[in-house]
Amino acid sequence: MPQNPLTLFVDHQFTSPYAMSVYVTLREKGIPFVTERLDLGEQQHQQTAYRQQSLTARVPTLVHEGFALSESSAISEYLEEVFAPPTFAAAYPQDVQQRARARQVQAWLRSDLMPLRSERGTDTVFIQPTTTPLSATALQTADKLFRVAEQLLPAGASHLFGNWCIADTDLALMLMRLVANGDVVPERLKTYATQQWQRPSVQHWVQQPRT
Amino acid sequence: MPQNPLTLFVDHQFTSPYAMSVYVTLREKGIPFVTERLDLGEQQHQQTAYRQQSLTARVPTLVHEGFALSESSAISEYLEEVFAPPTFAAAYPQDVQQRARARQVQAWLRSDLMPLRSERGTDTVFIQPTTTPLSATALQTADKLFRVAEQLLPAGASHLFGNWCIADTDLALMLMRLVANGDVVPERLKTYATQQWQRPSVQHWVQQPRT
Ligand SMILES: [Ca+2]
Ligand SMILES: [Ca+2]
Ligand SMILES: [Ca+2]
Ligand SMILES: [Ca+2]
Repeated sequence: MPQNPLTLFVDHQFTSPYAMSVYVTLREKGIPFVTERLDLGEQQHQQTAYRQQSLTARVPTLVHEGFALSESSAISEYLEEVFAPPTFAAAYPQDVQQRARARQVQAWLRSDLMPLRSERGTDTVFIQPTTTPLSATALQTADKLFRVAEQLLPAGASHLFGNWCIADTDLALMLMRLVANGDVVPERLKTYATQQWQRPSVQHWVQQPRT
Repeated sequence: MPQNPLTLFVDHQFTSPYAMSVYVTLREKGIPFVTERLDLGEQQHQQTAYRQQSLTARVPTLVHEGFALSESSAISEYLEEVFAPPTFAAAYPQDVQQRARARQVQAWLRSDLMPLRSERGTDTVFIQPTTTPLSATALQTADKLFRVAEQLLPAGASHLFGNWCIADTDLALMLMRLVANGDVVPERLKTYATQQWQRPSVQHWVQQPRT
């Protein structure tokens, strides 16, 4: 064990999908790390010490040997470069086009589908499901998610690109916003998301204590 | 000149900050490409042929030898891998930590600062400035932008990381949303943004016909 393991700052309740994404990358690579929890409701992410490290006062932030980095996709890319395959497990596909597509998926899931992300917050996935029906707009957004996911996921495949990559976890979480709340999801995508959800790295996050 | 140059799909009015980002990467690298303009108001991005290429019906999309890719940061990363330095100009820093920080900046500018992006749309930068004052929320957002940019930009520096990278262009555009509309911007940041704006690659985009 290293003397100074990596530190990952996450939200107090372990509900941030972006903190989860980095957490899963770290666990898939088998890198020792500690988590530091910030209570966002108590504005702990706005405290000066954290803000100076994170720059943008967002979670997650990774600190590695004094280097503090925020934005989950940037962190996973950094981990892929510093703890690179084949010594460590790959978080991204090795093929240039597949790696590009994985980045597209990550960027898209972080900048689109707002009505769905809003009406199916991750607290409904990790803490308590909701019984509120989806609005018409959120249903349209869900349809877009299904259409894109069905185009991306090859027939019969368990992963987007042959082997697992971090975009699988991100896409599975977006689908689980619906699956976990009993919303209608095409069977093939439901199976995909549910299988992704069973990965030990993901389950380790899912089963964090939240009380 | 290659027989099949790259094709970049952009919005009809050349106002998408993400299309601009890829456009600038292509020009900095000196890669021949053609632009195809989609009238978003006429829903041309929702037409089946485009949707099948872009997957998500967003601009920009780059098509390179039959491979269609969307999401501007994913496209610039792809171009950096396929048209790599030192044969082509670098779009990202070579240092691992600086490259990580550039990715952080790109991801942050694409997922935060919403009130500012909304009240200072890029039409006010490229077509017609607005005289509407910023709301209190947008002013707070501008303060966050200034605080982060001032921490990122070394004193006296013209670029974030020594040499130009695509995160400079993205950050400059975010600042120009304010500069172009006469909003208050700290002098050092105003100088930085205005200098970045003068790069030939950026001016080539700025001076596109928009009528
Ligand atoms: Ca940081
Ligand atoms: Ca808790
Ligand atoms: Ca695409
Ligand atoms: Ca026009």
